[in-house]
Amino acid sequence: MFITFLTDFGLQDDFVGTCHGVMKGIAPEAQIIDLTHGVRPGGILQGALALANALPYMPAGVHLAVVDPGVGGARRPLALRDAEGRLYVGPDNGLLLPAADRFGGVADAVELANPAYALQSVSRTFHGRDLFSPAAAHLALGVKLADLGPPIDPEALVRLELPQPEVSPAHIAATVLGIDRFGNVALNLTREHFDQAGIVPGTQVELTSRGGRYFAVAARTFSDARPGDLIVYEDSYRNLAVAVAQGSAAALLGVDEGSPLLIEVDTP
Amino acid sequence: MFITFLTDFGLQDDFVGTCHGVMKGIAPEAQIIDLTHGVRPGGILQGALALANALPYMPAGVHLAVVDPGVGGARRPLALRDAEGRLYVGPDNGLLLPAADRFGGVADAVELANPAYALQSVSRTFHGRDLFSPAAAHLALGVKLADLGPPIDPEALVRLELPQPEVSPAHIAATVLGIDRFGNVALNLTREHFDQAGIVPGTQVELTSRGGRYFAVAARTFSDARPGDLIVYEDSYRNLAVAVAQGSAAALLGVDEGSPLLIEVDTP
Amino acid sequence: MFITFLTDFGLQDDFVGTCHGVMKGIAPEAQIIDLTHGVRPGGILQGALALANALPYMPAGVHLAVVDPGVGGARRPLALRDAEGRLYVGPDNGLLLPAADRFGGVADAVELANPAYALQSVSRTFHGRDLFSPAAAHLALGVKLADLGPPIDPEALVRLELPQPEVSPAHIAATVLGIDRFGNVALNLTREHFDQAGIVPGTQVELTSRGGRYFAVAARTFSDARPGDLIVYEDSYRNLAVAVAQGSAAALLGVDEGSPLLIEVDTP
Repeated sequence: MFITFLTDFGLQDDFVGTCHGVMKGIAPEAQIIDLTHGVRPGGILQGALALANALPYMPAGVHLAVVDPGVGGARRPLALRDAEGRLYVGPDNGLLLPAADRFGGVADAVELANPAYALQSVSRTFHGRDLFSPAAAHLALGVKLADLGPPIDPEALVRLELPQPEVSPAHIAATVLGIDRFGNVALNLTREHFDQAGIVPGTQVELTSRGGRYFAVAARTFSDARPGDLIVYEDSYRNLAVAVAQGSAAALLGVDEGSPLLIEVDTP
Repeated sequence: MFITFLTDFGLQDDFVGTCHGVMKGIAPEAQIIDLTHGVRPGGILQGALALANALPYMPAGVHLAVVDPGVGGARRPLALRDAEGRLYVGPDNGLLLPAADRFGGVADAVELANPAYALQSVSRTFHGRDLFSPAAAHLALGVKLADLGPPIDPEALVRLELPQPEVSPAHIAATVLGIDRFGNVALNLTREHFDQAGIVPGTQVELTSRGGRYFAVAARTFSDARPGDLIVYEDSYRNLAVAVAQGSAAALLGVDEGSPLLIEVDTP
Repeated sequence: MFITFLTDFGLQDDFVGTCHGVMKGIAPEAQIIDLTHGVRPGGILQGALALANALPYMPAGVHLAVVDPGVGGARRPLALRDAEGRLYVGPDNGLLLPAADRFGGVADAVELANPAYALQSVSRTFHGRDLFSPAAAHLALGVKLADLGPPIDPEALVRLELPQPEVSPAHIAATVLGIDRFGNVALNLTREHFDQAGIVPGTQVELTSRGGRYFAVAARTFSDARPGDLIVYEDSYRNLAVAVAQGSAAALLGVDEGSPLLIEVDTP
């Protein structure tokens, strides 16, 4: 059985390794796939999008995700099953739902309340170790979802609000969803938005960011551009993104997660 | 059989991956749990505390740890067994002992001196690969501790000195043990020290760091505070720590590993 | 079967985890060893050297490496077999050849062109996920190299040019190949070059870098030097390197990958 594991814990501390140890102590044969632990601390939306983007490439199993700034407070600890039978474990703060929605939505939800499937002593600040990892490992062993705690109405789960773009002909007001290691800038846009705005591969566009204006071209891949040229392209998760061949588009545009970006068709 | 693995190697180079390859070449079925490789380069005390804190959450097995600024010099390469039968491999610089002490102390110690359980050629600068990883893998295969080399008197092992706090009523002079990714500041204090000083949840305290003074409150968890408020709380390893809800306490206080921090009860 | 995995993807995004998921979905029993994902973005030479240095320590298997700034363009996707039977998967940009050369050179090469061994939809920007990971996993399952695509003449593969040193008695003009996490500076030199220049352990040398001059001594290991002293030593991969005991030689010398470094025997 596979357990995929995504957090904002980073790798410089032992948080991730400790959770691995807890899971392996309970389910020694489970295979753990570290999806990423590089989500920005407290970046619930970033984690939710990464999980939703990556999950179609993961074998089915238990999907453990912990980005949990509200740990120890009123937010509920959850386990879910989606319509295709994948299982999820994490906090009730919206983190898990965009992924589950890709597989038909949440079919069943429970609150993690059964102490038989948690560590003996549950701290107030590290539910990843004490509550979520044990629950994921027990699910991987075959424990039934309903045994982990009382059911919750899927409609009552906390949902994130995704920023929506404004699209009109030749003009799009977009938001930066994230920046990857290569400095590529993911936007809250898909190819359909470009179609609406009349942008096709080869179209020259102008980007406005923090008062600066930049020429770019709609392109298919990095190698369609010369080093230093800005391109707007459909990334490998089918979101639109801005890149600069052999450089960082994020640094060039001065944008960060949440920044606004204006895209206009360049009409000479 | 499990091998847990902690180092200061970081992950940008291939040091960790190379050690994995060496271990898997010897013991293909061993499961390696990366505890962390983010210990500060040469941070023996930091590594020792991380190992001691995490080990109670690890399945028993071989615990390999390498933070080894004295590699190639006079410090001895070790394998140990604690009173509960867990095995340890690493340098004789104090790194392993706080962890072994949590499991009854060192029962047996040997110096890694048998070339049958090292790589054929042992470099002077990478014992992690050439000496420690092979020893850990052979132990995981069932090789006996005594076969790795001659015994050492456990009393003769190098020990670290941990900084001790000064505690008096309403006043504690503490030292920062470490900073985690979230900017939380771990102190060389436990709840017993707070009891001695008369600090309980809800007590207002004043922190003095680098000449600056900050108000804080003794609290149970992050969500007891408003964003921006400093709290002092018992962290998930049962050390006292300073945090700021949705921010970095380390950045706010300007502290680093080893910094002094004064805590005084705020008497109006 | 083992798959070793080296990239410039970093670990803050989900790129590496997604590739793991793709491989595990195809070959659940394959063991993946993460060699490193910390290669500088687009650092083909750095990745090629890391792979060549580490591979002798890896169990034989499939060696997947992706440093691929030309993704989506004209560069071909490859699978190779070396003279000793190890298998390689990655882009045709020189990344794989220094490693294969350590094992007798490339015996067979094919272009990855058979869609049966790729994901159903191949993006233009993430061949690591869509093309290379599936090919590696299928090879690990026992698929034959020839089934992946048409053969390529090994002589026609793209090769990197390694910077060559200039060596004369008492004088070496070297190039920095890379900097590791500890700030150690690897040079394009082996002990043979030092022999040619008449440098032996104990020889005093002078290093010239960016206009600055520094005294150093040829030494065997870090512990031969006092804290702060520069040493030139044979590193654990049998390259010559510059280190400073308990410090960063790279920071002291102000060098980076590709920087020139002059070494002269210090004649009083």
